[in-house]
Order: sequence, then structure tokens, then C-alpha cells
Amino acid sequence: MKISILGTGNVGQTIASKMITLGHEVFMGSRDAQQARTRTQSNPMSGTSFAEWLKTYSAVSLVDYKDLPADSDIYINCTQGEGSVAALEAAGKEKLNGKIILDIANPLDFSKGMPPTLFISNTDSLGEKLQREFPESKIVKGLNTMNCNIMVNPSMVPGDHNVFLSGNDEQAKKEITSLLVTIGWQSNNIIDLGDISTSRGTEMILPIWLRLWGALGTADFNFHIAQK
Amino acid sequence: MKISILGTGNVGQTIASKMITLGHEVFMGSRDAQQARTRTQSNPMSGTSFAEWLKTYSAVSLVDYKDLPADSDIYINCTQGEGSVAALEAAGKEKLNGKIILDIANPLDFSKGMPPTLFISNTDSLGEKLQREFPESKIVKGLNTMNCNIMVNPSMVPGDHNVFLSGNDEQAKKEITSLLVTIGWQSNNIIDLGDISTSRGTEMILPIWLRLWGALGTADFNFHIAQK
Repeated sequence: MKISILGTGNVGQTIASKMITLGHEVFMGSRDAQQARTRTQSNPMSGTSFAEWLKTYSAVSLVDYKDLPADSDIYINCTQGEGSVAALEAAGKEKLNGKIILDIANPLDFSKGMPPTLFISNTDSLGEKLQREFPESKIVKGLNTMNCNIMVNPSMVPGDHNVFLSGNDEQAKKEITSLLVTIGWQSNNIIDLGDISTSRGTEMILPIWLRLWGALGTADFNFHIAQK
Repeated sequence: MKISILGTGNVGQTIASKMITLGHEVFMGSRDAQQARTRTQSNPMSGTSFAEWLKTYSAVSLVDYKDLPADSDIYINCTQGEGSVAALEAAGKEKLNGKIILDIANPLDFSKGMPPTLFISNTDSLGEKLQREFPESKIVKGLNTMNCNIMVNPSMVPGDHNVFLSGNDEQAKKEITSLLVTIGWQSNNIIDLGDISTSRGTEMILPIWLRLWGALGTADFNFHIAQK
């Protein structure tokens, strides 16, 4: 498949690495690809710089958002929540018409100190906002409830644990489910919550995720819905 | 122990039943005990009326909030979130000074239709609000992330799954932990998230809980934090 990833941060790199490993054709969009290419500052999460990462994953085509291909099978939003609308607009609304956008972003607001709060929640969500701003696109919210290493390597946490999907388009959710299965997610651990308004639920799980990170002293955990 | 329960709804009844079964002396507070005693309408969750329930659990002392005993070891807030402050105020602020209050309530707002939203969230929580309103009490938020049958019978969901605690007083959290262990919670499944501000996390989990209820078609599930 041809996959376009928006965002060159830790999440974008982790997803892109996995997609390359799976044999996909991967494009990565940045606000300023030329500037991003020279980023030599180490990422505090991964320990390597984007420039170093790009050398390892040289099959990735790094471009400005506007130059992401119009014929991608899937677009994956790995930007920070506050920059998501601008990033997708820079990619081009017409280009995204009819396309599946997997939205991994969370509406984290770091402006009020730590831990971050959400800049949209409760009666609305980032997933819904993206669906409103890009009404002809098929937004599927997913993977946003765990650290990115688990997103692409679910078996690093033993036993059953879950990934949640939200979206208005059933076929788009099926295609994202298929992609998740190729990543290593067991289909019985993929829970379809319903339409895009259920994004509120997964985005509002972030505050307890952040506190669990503190309480457990590790980000290597995931939510599992234990059932009778 | 002497245990006072605020609220006579499904959650209050379920907790009171368990506390009676465990041999505790149980008081139950209502806005109007006399009126509550004659409530013959069936509870849609349990299928029985409060009047019927009271006959079965005749050891429960039903009183007005103001008549709850001042020497209870633990007070348990099982009221609806929007009535919690008023209920605790009716019980009496002085009476509650220095006392442990286990807060199971959630700030659900049904006024905007279904599913409910939260009337306080993101930058504040009901747990924090109660701690501010009753500064001399020891609020411990807990058990609010699951249906009440699981609260008192965790083994009805097989395997490991979790209960989360939030509170400023370490000793109070220890006493609630001990109570939970007598109910059947394994101590390794009780996660202390930190101070009372971590209530935001557990209260904000409600929106996904409600959507999971719909998606799974059952409320007999609980959150489990799967770890590496």
C-alpha cells in the first residue's frame, strides 16, 4: 500500500518504521521537509535524531505536507493535536476527499502546565472536529490510547489488551482493522466503539493514561477490557 | 466497622448489601428516609424496589442524611454526582471532619441527552470539588469506573482487572484498600494513582465506559491495565 504519514515526531517515526518494515511505500509529510531533514537534536523518547532516523529508513519519502501523494491508500495523522487541522489543510482538503485518515492525535494542551489537559473534550473531540473540517474524508480514530511502541508491537505487552476504533464509515474501519491485524493486533482485541463521536471516550482516557504512567513508572502498559 | 452510606439507589443498595454480608453495622442516609422507605417502584437495574430490598436487608438502619452517625468509620458517597455536595452537607460538615469519605459518585450530566456528558471535568473533578468543600475530610475516590455488581464481586469478571484510588491522605487510602481486600479485590489490582486531582482521570473514563457498554452489549466488564 501507499501510506502517507503526517508528522515527523516520535509517533510518526514509529509508525513509518513499521510501515516500511511491512513493505509499504511510505511518504512522510512535514511543515518544512527541508528543515526537518536537518534536525539533529535527539528525540527524548527514542534517543535518536530525525536526521539519523531518516538515514536508517531511507526508503521513506520525506516531503512537505502539500506534496504528499494524492493516491495514498491511507493517511495517518501523527501530528500533535493542536496542529492537526493545519497539517491536514496544508496537505490539501481536495486531496483528502474520500480518503481514509487514521487519526492517532490527541488534543493535549500543555499550556496550563503538567500534566496536560485537553483543549477539546466532553461535548466534542478532536476526531469529530477533523470529521467536521474534512467532511468528505473518512476519519477513523484509533491507536491514540497507548504509547507508540505498543501501537506497532502489541505483543510487547503480554496477554490481551485493546485498541479502540471510532468512525462514521464502516468500510474505512474495516480497512484500518485489516492494517492493524498486519501490524500484529488480534482482531478480537480491536473494539469498534461506534461513530466518530465515540472519539470523546478514547481522547478522554488520556488523563488517566498520564497518571498511570506516573503511578506505574512506565509507559509500557495498555488498557484491556476484561469481560465476564 | 460502622459504615454510613449516602444514597439509596442501585449503587448504595449494592454496597450496603455487601457491607451487611461482611458483618458491618450499616447506616444508609437518604434525603427523606420516610419517603424512601415506601418506594415500591422497581429499580430498572436490580428489578426490585427499595422497599423490597429493605425487607431483605433489614439490618440496615435507614435514616435522613442528618441522622447518620457521627462515629462511622467510613462514609461512602453513593449519590448521583450532581447531588453529592448537598447530600454531604445535609449529613453535616462538622460530623465529617477528619472522616474518610469513599467517593464512588460520577459527575454525569443527563440534561443534554444520551449519552451523558460530565458537568465537571478536564481541569477539575467531582473528587477535587468534594475535597475543597469538605477540606477537613479525607476524600478517597474509588470504584467509580465499573458497574456496581463488579465493585462488590470482582471475581465475576475473570482474570486481573483494576480499581483505581485517588486521594490526598495516604492512611485513608490504606484503610480503603483494606476494605476493598475484604470485598475480594486483590491488593495487586488496586492502583493508587496519586492525589485527589487524579480523580479527573477516573471520572473522565466514564465516556468510554458508556460507549463500551453499548459496543459490547453488557456492563459486565472492567478496565485492566495490562503491563509489560
